Amino acid sequence: MPKHTVRKSHKAGAPPGTLVHIGDQRSDKVQIAIIDYSAESITEKECEVFELKEYRQSDSITWINIEGLHDIELLKNVGKVFNLDQLLLEDVLNTNHRPKTEIFDDYIFVTLKMIDIKNNAINAEQVSFVLGNNWLISFQEVEGDVFDNIRDRLRKGTGELRKRKVDFLFYRLIDTIVDNYFFVTEYFSDKNALLEQGIFKNPTPEALREIQLLKRQIVNFKRAVLPLREVASVLEKDGADFIQQSTFRYLRDLYEHIIQVNDSIDSQREVISSIMDLYLSGTSNKMNEVMKVLTVISTIFIPLTFIAGVYGMNFTNMPETQWHYGYYIVWGIMLSIFIGLLIYFRRKNWF
Amino acid sequence: MPKHTVRKSHKAGAPPGTLVHIGDQRSDKVQIAIIDYSAESITEKECEVFELKEYRQSDSITWINIEGLHDIELLKNVGKVFNLDQLLLEDVLNTNHRPKTEIFDDYIFVTLKMIDIKNNAINAEQVSFVLGNNWLISFQEVEGDVFDNIRDRLRKGTGELRKRKVDFLFYRLIDTIVDNYFFVTEYFSDKNALLEQGIFKNPTPEALREIQLLKRQIVNFKRAVLPLREVASVLEKDGADFIQQSTFRYLRDLYEHIIQVNDSIDSQREVISSIMDLYLSGTSNKMNEVMKVLTVISTIFIPLTFIAGVYGMNFTNMPETQWHYGYYIVWGIMLSIFIGLLIYFRRKNWF
Amino acid sequence: MPKHTVRKSHKAGAPPGTLVHIGDQRSDKVQIAIIDYSAESITEKECEVFELKEYRQSDSITWINIEGLHDIELLKNVGKVFNLDQLLLEDVLNTNHRPKTEIFDDYIFVTLKMIDIKNNAINAEQVSFVLGNNWLISFQEVEGDVFDNIRDRLRKGTGELRKRKVDFLFYRLIDTIVDNYFFVTEYFSDKNALLEQGIFKNPTPEALREIQLLKRQIVNFKRAVLPLREVASVLEKDGADFIQQSTFRYLRDLYEHIIQVNDSIDSQREVISSIMDLYLSGTSNKMNEVMKVLTVISTIFIPLTFIAGVYGMNFTNMPETQWHYGYYIVWGIMLSIFIGLLIYFRRKNWF
Amino acid sequence: MPKHTVRKSHKAGAPPGTLVHIGDQRSDKVQIAIIDYSAESITEKECEVFELKEYRQSDSITWINIEGLHDIELLKNVGKVFNLDQLLLEDVLNTNHRPKTEIFDDYIFVTLKMIDIKNNAINAEQVSFVLGNNWLISFQEVEGDVFDNIRDRLRKGTGELRKRKVDFLFYRLIDTIVDNYFFVTEYFSDKNALLEQGIFKNPTPEALREIQLLKRQIVNFKRAVLPLREVASVLEKDGADFIQQSTFRYLRDLYEHIIQVNDSIDSQREVISSIMDLYLSGTSNKMNEVMKVLTVISTIFIPLTFIAGVYGMNFTNMPETQWHYGYYIVWGIMLSIFIGLLIYFRRKNWF
Amino acid sequence: MPKHTVRKSHKAGAPPGTLVHIGDQRSDKVQIAIIDYSAESITEKECEVFELKEYRQSDSITWINIEGLHDIELLKNVGKVFNLDQLLLEDVLNTNHRPKTEIFDDYIFVTLKMIDIKNNAINAEQVSFVLGNNWLISFQEVEGDVFDNIRDRLRKGTGELRKRKVDFLFYRLIDTIVDNYFFVTEYFSDKNALLEQGIFKNPTPEALREIQLLKRQIVNFKRAVLPLREVASVLEKDGADFIQQSTFRYLRDLYEHIIQVNDSIDSQREVISSIMDLYLSGTSNKMNEVMKVLTVISTIFIPLTFIAGVYGMNFTNMPETQWHYGYYIVWGIMLSIFIGLLIYFRRKNWF
Repeated sequence: MPKHTVRKSHKAGAPPGTLVHIGDQRSDKVQIAIIDYSAESITEKECEVFELKEYRQSDSITWINIEGLHDIELLKNVGKVFNLDQLLLEDVLNTNHRPKTEIFDDYIFVTLKMIDIKNNAINAEQVSFVLGNNWLISFQEVEGDVFDNIRDRLRKGTGELRKRKVDFLFYRLIDTIVDNYFFVTEYFSDKNALLEQGIFKNPTPEALREIQLLKRQIVNFKRAVLPLREVASVLEKDGADFIQQSTFRYLRDLYEHIIQVNDSIDSQREVISSIMDLYLSGTSNKMNEVMKVLTVISTIFIPLTFIAGVYGMNFTNMPETQWHYGYYIVWGIMLSIFIGLLIYFRRKNWF
Repeated sequence: MPKHTVRKSHKAGAPPGTLVHIGDQRSDKVQIAIIDYSAESITEKECEVFELKEYRQSDSITWINIEGLHDIELLKNVGKVFNLDQLLLEDVLNTNHRPKTEIFDDYIFVTLKMIDIKNNAINAEQVSFVLGNNWLISFQEVEGDVFDNIRDRLRKGTGELRKRKVDFLFYRLIDTIVDNYFFVTEYFSDKNALLEQGIFKNPTPEALREIQLLKRQIVNFKRAVLPLREVASVLEKDGADFIQQSTFRYLRDLYEHIIQVNDSIDSQREVISSIMDLYLSGTSNKMNEVMKVLTVISTIFIPLTFIAGVYGMNFTNMPETQWHYGYYIVWGIMLSIFIGLLIYFRRKNWF
Repeated sequence: MPKHTVRKSHKAGAPPGTLVHIGDQRSDKVQIAIIDYSAESITEKECEVFELKEYRQSDSITWINIEGLHDIELLKNVGKVFNLDQLLLEDVLNTNHRPKTEIFDDYIFVTLKMIDIKNNAINAEQVSFVLGNNWLISFQEVEGDVFDNIRDRLRKGTGELRKRKVDFLFYRLIDTIVDNYFFVTEYFSDKNALLEQGIFKNPTPEALREIQLLKRQIVNFKRAVLPLREVASVLEKDGADFIQQSTFRYLRDLYEHIIQVNDSIDSQREVISSIMDLYLSGTSNKMNEVMKVLTVISTIFIPLTFIAGVYGMNFTNMPETQWHYGYYIVWGIMLSIFIGLLIYFRRKNWF
Repeated sequence: MPKHTVRKSHKAGAPPGTLVHIGDQRSDKVQIAIIDYSAESITEKECEVFELKEYRQSDSITWINIEGLHDIELLKNVGKVFNLDQLLLEDVLNTNHRPKTEIFDDYIFVTLKMIDIKNNAINAEQVSFVLGNNWLISFQEVEGDVFDNIRDRLRKGTGELRKRKVDFLFYRLIDTIVDNYFFVTEYFSDKNALLEQGIFKNPTPEALREIQLLKRQIVNFKRAVLPLREVASVLEKDGADFIQQSTFRYLRDLYEHIIQVNDSIDSQREVISSIMDLYLSGTSNKMNEVMKVLTVISTIFIPLTFIAGVYGMNFTNMPETQWHYGYYIVWGIMLSIFIGLLIYFRRKNWF
Repeated sequence: MPKHTVRKSHKAGAPPGTLVHIGDQRSDKVQIAIIDYSAESITEKECEVFELKEYRQSDSITWINIEGLHDIELLKNVGKVFNLDQLLLEDVLNTNHRPKTEIFDDYIFVTLKMIDIKNNAINAEQVSFVLGNNWLISFQEVEGDVFDNIRDRLRKGTGELRKRKVDFLFYRLIDTIVDNYFFVTEYFSDKNALLEQGIFKNPTPEALREIQLLKRQIVNFKRAVLPLREVASVLEKDGADFIQQSTFRYLRDLYEHIIQVNDSIDSQREVISSIMDLYLSGTSNKMNEVMKVLTVISTIFIPLTFIAGVYGMNFTNMPETQWHYGYYIVWGIMLSIFIGLLIYFRRKNWF
């Protein structure tokens, strides 16, 4: 989930194109994994930067997956091999960047959020793609992604993936990311359903916190999804140099999926806000209950106590106290009042 | 009513065009019902996929109605016969798809929600149409629809239906679906009227639940209706290859009906939100009532009890207690206070 | 006032152009009133459908006013005489139709709401116009309208009305309807002013109901007015075949009036919503008052009652009770507490 | 400040161009003040309608300022001299008209609100301008305006005013009106600051009224300012026949000022709405305070009173009452409870 | 932070282009600092107005930084040297002006807010730039800015700054200002996080004030940032005469940063509004707690006190009082009631 502020300030004042990694700093080695394939064959290996050059020039399709953004020197070198723009690399490193696409002369750049539900928590990661004429670079923040399915298909050569150009791989990777968004909307939906149950009956402060958290997660998720619409439509409109005609049909499909996720988010927002209403009504309802108990008890016993008080007075001349059945008569009166008030409150539906 | 989330996740990562039925799984046989007609004659029968080919090539108009989406093999075969796009079939199967239309070279594709009120409940079903040059396929999730009226007219040959081309049938089916939306708006209107009555007087938690439910139903209904505007206007603008000039006038009419439904939904939304206001005011009003009762009773009896308490003290030297009429005087004072406070509260309009 | 739902459902499934009167059914005869005039002469009479044909062909200008929509046969015949489209007649009969205009080859169609304040109530009626080259048909739901002024002018021949073409009559009728909207805005304004007075002091449930009612009336009124903007601008843009150049200037004026009414409605909406705020603040304020009374009385007398209770205990060894002035001392203490608390609450501004 | 409704109804049904003065009726004479100037000379005088003709034809620039709109005959005559459109005069008389401009063949028409702060109250007045080729007519509702500054400059001949064409005078008058809007925004700002102070501590009903009033004033002011944006941009776009190239630069500046006023109004609206929040929080906070006092006092003394009550019972066999120190022990217990509860509430931060 | 009103009124009525400094008046000398550089050399000095002329005509790039706007005479002279428009200077002096850009024949004008966090407070200052063909003037309100970084780079000649034209310096200055906005968003984020903690548990009036203040600061900040989008896009679209092709790429980057700041502000606004919700829920929760304590205590002790009151009555014939164990039996009953009610409230989760 994108944090809602941008720790970009330590870069303020630096010249444009200064490469600073904005995100958690880590010390493990940055991995470069290569899958080089054609319709007939496929090679898979980890490699070093200097080996990349030959893949760039080969005729086969090469997918270069880079995991880790903290080794800036390495990224610069990758940039040199593929002739990447300085500002492009800056965007890759800025893990708070909103989803965007940019069409360059030699490649297309796309950055977006890969969002995953693991152990009931939302993990978001910035992923950037650079699509060249027969190579594709993907930059990820950390190890682990949602692409295993695609790697399998590449290895097995099933489906169209191996038979088509690199633009189809590119489409498939983004499509997979977007498909994963559906998990997130389901996660929200389940959470909402869970929250809704019993919140009216028992509007605890903890529930309030969870509502607030969920609301914020939904808002942040929307922020990750909304700009994707534009990304998809820019690709469709201006991507013709890198994307084949036969793939455009799929881009439109992708666009529709994004719209659908978006619709679903809007739905969740309305649900969460009506849950908030339930919460508020619930608290006010509970207060009402408390007030009613107080009122019923007080209103019944205060007059009775008054009567008892009257006959507790020490006047010498109080004839009733001398009556033989005075005590029982007073009890009778008090019982009548008691029962009368009970009936009255019952009629008023107060308990 | 479209659910507000999209159980599409089990498809995530599958290649585009993978046909997966998203919706409740069922085991009964998928029905293919055919109505083949011309101005002169009409044939009606259930048939198998392999029989469809001849209908495609015949000159008469054929309406192929498929009930059930869970037999993917069958749908694939239908797709082959009519040369349907893979992604189109994917959309047919995705019963959470928002209403849309797409113009292909050989046919027009439209998907929308058929919404029905049965036994005081809202039933929504995804319906998709594929309109070819003289055939029309309709895909429905389950048996039962709102088209019986049209079948009757076809059978009897009354009206223009049999005399006109397939585009008119296509229009009439969609029009019937939209006409049914008016039942839904009336349902909402009735529910609203029912809820409004007495909610201020008696704002029960159950009423709140119903308000929330109705609100959500209205929002979901809007989600089903709103995109239809675009569907209608796309058909009008780009449908010329499949829709005859004489039908366009009706499409505009259809468009206006959709707008009218939409207006009506917006109305209902405002009504439901003002009912929510009534509910909230009602609870706060009830609380006020409770508070007033408590206050009136307490405020009257607490001072009286105090007076009784004073003359219950055991001081040896309390002259009043020795007075012959002391007791009656105290009663007099207490009654005056009682009546005085009653008048005071009456003036304050507290009861 | 347009009802906020659309009882159109009993028509669902019927073919387009099926004429069904949507509105209250009535049994009295439908009136056809004709005013046929030229600069020199004027004829006024009630007539039957078969007589209409000659008026259509005459050179003089004919205004045909039809009051009542429940005699569908009659309307069909009128339609035949003037060659009116089936769907146009359907729109005329659908008294819930939103204001719209449509330009046909031989005439212009406009439908809108005539809204009137009578006996402090809002009456709304659907009025439709069909403007031909020298005839004008107006369809009204019931007898009685706001056009008497114009009939007078026609009869007397004052002003430009008789000297100009039928398009000017058409403009004048619509203009009169729109001018009447100003009465409605004034009605709202007066109602608002009335409601505002004293609602803070005395926020009764009745006032709440009235606020809600007024709010809904304003919303519905807006719904009747807003689409008129488009009507006016369509007439201005595309009406050139039926409306003379010299009348366009007036159409722009009409447009401005509609905008002004609209502005005024928006104003009223803000006022009514701030009245609602006043109401809510008023209830919470009243509750505060009640609470304060309760608190002041309880807080003063509860401690005093406690003291009285203490000296009502029956311990044998309670020295104070034996003191000669004990009773008076206790009274002194209780009075001090009483006065002290009064001063305290006074300082806190509680009464 | 424009009233939020439009007393236009007494005109309803009258033909277009009927001149009716909408506004307060007054009986004093309408003043026509003329300033006729060129770079070299200036004449200033009051004059009658029949004298206007010569000024229209002269080469010098003439500013005709008309104060008072209630003498319709006079206005009609002015209209005749300058060939003014009937509908234009109608707009001049309609003092509730929203700001607008209209470009005619022979002149430009502009109407807007002149808003002034006098004695801590807002005065709004409709002002209309008609700009011809070398004359300018201004219509005001009442005597007194914000133009004295400009009159002085004209008389003294300082600055560019005398040296430039009439369009510059026209610009300067409107600019002066807009400049005065800044006083209004400052007035709002000051009022807001005043209201904000202490409203949380002491949320009185009077403060609520003032908030509501201010809110409405701000909304109305916005209504007077917002349409001016369009006026300025229409002048810039289409005013070329009457406004010189050199003046356009100033119109853009005017436009920016209008935007700035508008921004400032939006700011004030947000401030007033946050003041409303403060008010509401304040009332609920006060209620909380009241409740706490009640609770602390009741909760402390109710148990103590109970104990006293116990030892006030008249059982013959109550051993404690016979103990020599029983009374003192009970006091001890009561004091402990008293102090214990005090500490408890202190810890809960209740006082 | 821009104040939310515009003390511009003392200028009202003055002719356009009248130079009045709107802002705090100060008496110290206005500083003119010059940095004149080419790829090879750099000169830095303070200078007087009359020296500026030569810099204008030199081939080297000159950055003229003017600190202080209160010496209008000096600014007028600067204006004469560089041929600056009067209205431009007026905008420079109006320190409440919203960010804007204007393209003149000989230069580009940009004005915007420089916003800085110092000592935990937000400082805003109006900064204006005039970009000529090889000179750049910057106007600041007070001494001190965020440009030291750039001055250093100029002095040291590192990076591209010295090698490129003046448009790059211009871009870098604006970029630095925008980069500083990220500090402000972080400041808001930190403040929000701080406020959020514990506000539900302890919703003090002070917290409310802070929420309100922060909300207003965020709104004002947004007002400073939002118009910048337009500034950036105008520069990109129309700045071609003064900005080199190679710099456009950076302008787009700048544009994206502005969007990102804007997104972040919107995020903060949602957070602050959910904090406000937390606050309100917190107060109502606290009230609930208070009510519960009152109710539990009252409801338990009022019935007990009643029982004690009964046996305090002075009837001569009250058999129970004569029972040997009467007193103990009553204690038993009272204890049972006490415990029973405790269990009841415990079950209701009231404490």
